[in-house]
Amino acid sequence: MSGGRFKIGVVAPASRLSPEVAERVPALAARLYPDRTPEIVFHKQCFASHGHFAGDDDTRAQAFLDVANDESYDALWFARGGYGSCRVAEAVIGGLKEPSKRKTYLGYSDAGALLAALYRAGFTSVAHGPVAQDILRDGGEAAAGRALAWMIDRAPETLEPTVNRAGKTAAFNITILSQLLGTPLQPDLAGHVLMLEEVGEAMYRIDRSLFHITSNAEIRRVAGIMLGRCSAITPNEPDFAMSEEEVARHWCRKSGIRWLGRADIGHDVDNKVVPFGNRGNLEARRQWSGTS
Amino acid sequence: MSGGRFKIGVVAPASRLSPEVAERVPALAARLYPDRTPEIVFHKQCFASHGHFAGDDDTRAQAFLDVANDESYDALWFARGGYGSCRVAEAVIGGLKEPSKRKTYLGYSDAGALLAALYRAGFTSVAHGPVAQDILRDGGEAAAGRALAWMIDRAPETLEPTVNRAGKTAAFNITILSQLLGTPLQPDLAGHVLMLEEVGEAMYRIDRSLFHITSNAEIRRVAGIMLGRCSAITPNEPDFAMSEEEVARHWCRKSGIRWLGRADIGHDVDNKVVPFGNRGNLEARRQWSGTS
Repeated sequence: MSGGRFKIGVVAPASRLSPEVAERVPALAARLYPDRTPEIVFHKQCFASHGHFAGDDDTRAQAFLDVANDESYDALWFARGGYGSCRVAEAVIGGLKEPSKRKTYLGYSDAGALLAALYRAGFTSVAHGPVAQDILRDGGEAAAGRALAWMIDRAPETLEPTVNRAGKTAAFNITILSQLLGTPLQPDLAGHVLMLEEVGEAMYRIDRSLFHITSNAEIRRVAGIMLGRCSAITPNEPDFAMSEEEVARHWCRKSGIRWLGRADIGHDVDNKVVPFGNRGNLEARRQWSGTS
Repeated sequence: MSGGRFKIGVVAPASRLSPEVAERVPALAARLYPDRTPEIVFHKQCFASHGHFAGDDDTRAQAFLDVANDESYDALWFARGGYGSCRVAEAVIGGLKEPSKRKTYLGYSDAGALLAALYRAGFTSVAHGPVAQDILRDGGEAAAGRALAWMIDRAPETLEPTVNRAGKTAAFNITILSQLLGTPLQPDLAGHVLMLEEVGEAMYRIDRSLFHITSNAEIRRVAGIMLGRCSAITPNEPDFAMSEEEVARHWCRKSGIRWLGRADIGHDVDNKVVPFGNRGNLEARRQWSGTS
């Protein structure tokens, strides 16, 4: 907390943030919270550039730690996805100090590598949900506003609708989770409802990644799988002849994992918030930290 | 063996074979081996079609087993890559009988899922090398001829040049190996020189897959990594600013895996043969089975 205002730090462990976001998000926050406008700090690293990335690995890891380890921040918000979080996960986890445990982490897509690492490390306020750059989508203020409402108020309407019914939950981009399997970043998802979404992949790749995920013995201990939206699927040559839901059902059947239907998550403005772990934990966290 | 002639069965556990291949390969074999022309049988499944695949999963698995479990065949040759081998691996491994152990298996790319499964199951004549469909490449007769020379004569000039110096070896397409990690198909590669190649992926994906592979504790027990050719790399936005070799060296350095340089493998006509395991085992196999 900073002078009573909720304080959010935005960092970009993957790709570079569009500068426009740093103007539009605070303006939105001021409109949505006129009496208690949150302080939103865009770490300068968000706008750094190093090849594919928003700065080199050291720069990105250090920016994450700058915010995570600073007691004055209530939340660390991922600027955007892209690619690069897996490259800094080891340095980030190795550098986290006590204040990092007392804040909320929110992001999705490539950020899943760090969300997984944080959750595995015992962090209790990790969630899959909109990133700052989502404000640039058509209707993107809904997504950014949802992220703020989750971080600031734990607003229940931000949640994926089944979260309240489910026990433990987790959510990932399909490709990102696939690429964590068998590494020290793979989280223990036993008993969790696992929600999966995808963007910009061909059907054969979605199928292959779901083979991979559902063939993992640890993943087979989930309570079930829900499929979010798979958008911007690229052409498959020849036509794959199965939809993403048929493919997900196939792999659930083959693996013995329960198929639990569709989830309201995806690379779009309707992407709802999915906390990692038990929803009850998050309620407790909120009361304990007094951030509401 | 069939009447003294070396007998090769071609099956397609992934994508459908071009019919032209079934004419050109036997013609090539007749030219190369006029006095001992091998019998090359293209299983009818090679030309089946089911969405993305050369027949549905049951059809593809059964075709593989038809050849693998038939004592009369000396070698099972993968028709081509594409996608689909991981879908049939469980059924194939579950259905293998005694005669399947006494033949050579040759393929690469998507076939890696089955090569891995066979090698993990203790098969000693598994190798990474050209598929039948490679004959359609420009200069592809060199690749198909190399495959024949390996299967029929274990011709030493077909081998990736470092194989004779190395102890145990294995080779994989980068994406395919990545998608086996943490599944029951992941082979034990401890002490192996691991050769990796890629085709048609963006640099960020190659980087991410190499993060994945080199972060796996079992993979870290390899003797070292050699990088084959990464061809047809798709555009990276923004430019990745690192080459595939720089990326491979990066992950070797980070993971403590020895970097052993470049390997003469790839999705091209120069793709050399890399036996799985110890070259000595293969020599012994050859003498024992009397297939030379």
